[in-house]
Amino acid sequence: MDERLKKQLDFILEADKVKNIMRQTYLADGKRKENDAEHSWHLALMAVLLKEYAPEKVDLSKVIPMVLIHDLVEIDAGDTYAYDAVGGATQHTREEAAAQRIYGILPEDQGKWLYNLWEEFEAYETPEAKYAHMLDNSQPLFLNNATDGISWVEHGVKKSQIYTRNRRTGEGAPKIWEYMQELIDQHVEKGHVIDDMSKKE
Amino acid sequence: MDERLKKQLDFILEADKVKNIMRQTYLADGKRKENDAEHSWHLALMAVLLKEYAPEKVDLSKVIPMVLIHDLVEIDAGDTYAYDAVGGATQHTREEAAAQRIYGILPEDQGKWLYNLWEEFEAYETPEAKYAHMLDNSQPLFLNNATDGISWVEHGVKKSQIYTRNRRTGEGAPKIWEYMQELIDQHVEKGHVIDDMSKKE
Repeated sequence: MDERLKKQLDFILEADKVKNIMRQTYLADGKRKENDAEHSWHLALMAVLLKEYAPEKVDLSKVIPMVLIHDLVEIDAGDTYAYDAVGGATQHTREEAAAQRIYGILPEDQGKWLYNLWEEFEAYETPEAKYAHMLDNSQPLFLNNATDGISWVEHGVKKSQIYTRNRRTGEGAPKIWEYMQELIDQHVEKGHVIDDMSKKE
Repeated sequence: MDERLKKQLDFILEADKVKNIMRQTYLADGKRKENDAEHSWHLALMAVLLKEYAPEKVDLSKVIPMVLIHDLVEIDAGDTYAYDAVGGATQHTREEAAAQRIYGILPEDQGKWLYNLWEEFEAYETPEAKYAHMLDNSQPLFLNNATDGISWVEHGVKKSQIYTRNRRTGEGAPKIWEYMQELIDQHVEKGHVIDDMSKKE
């Protein structure tokens, strides 16, 4: 068997492991948490359908592989919950090493290409990276909304944490960020998210 | 909230249900079966990486949404196992109604576009549909290979069934189909697949 095809199929099998990396977000039916493969599938589908809301021209032929592979590093580094400050501190170093190993399984040209796409996502500068981050941040929020915010309640999440996490989400799609804020307000109102941002007069 | 965005987000939430549609294929670690969302994510990743093996020019901007959405009909119609003759008989009628309902949730332009892509996949005529079918048939085979064929063993699958299922897989990527045949032979040899095709002299 051809060396190139072997490397590609080895990578495809290695990637299978993200199906076992669990996230903190529940499925829309609230019955179980989702995993990274399901999450990435959902982002790719959203990427295709919500492109019209990006303020800049985005190239889906970059966004799609970017969202499909952005969480593969968690095969080695594990999932760091959005509001986990301790895990967050070492996250980048752990993920960097993981990216080297995992994308390194591929033939060099493809491995470099995916590694660069992952770095581009992390750097959060290009229109494609901004759009991908908007997807990555809005998808769990839409699921949380569907489940009456159980993941927020479980983790005692504060409104300020959500806003910090999403401080740049609007750059990827202003209209969607606007709608997300409406949803956040509703969940603050219902007590699913802790209100630490309103000032008393 | 804007009617168009509402329809898009309704569809995105409806699509979440494929994460609960279980397939008969086990993950590469053999510990549990995979679901349609995980399977579709895997196909999209493979679509991106294996394009060079397609004998004709394939347009990934069609293939990717095609593989991302090809199993959504199973939200209503359920998964029909590749080697289930009874379910297979009514499969198309059930899936047609499901496609009408599910893609119908989207704004008309996007719903029509995805419905047409699903029909194109089913029709199995364009280079994109052939490539997508190759992915759809090879991914479970690679997983079955990784697990020593447990899904084949569980279902008592015969070599002729695999060949019938894959009679056109080579049209999507001859080299990958060649490798798949090597794997099938190995599993016939090991007794994981029933050998009903060899002639005694």
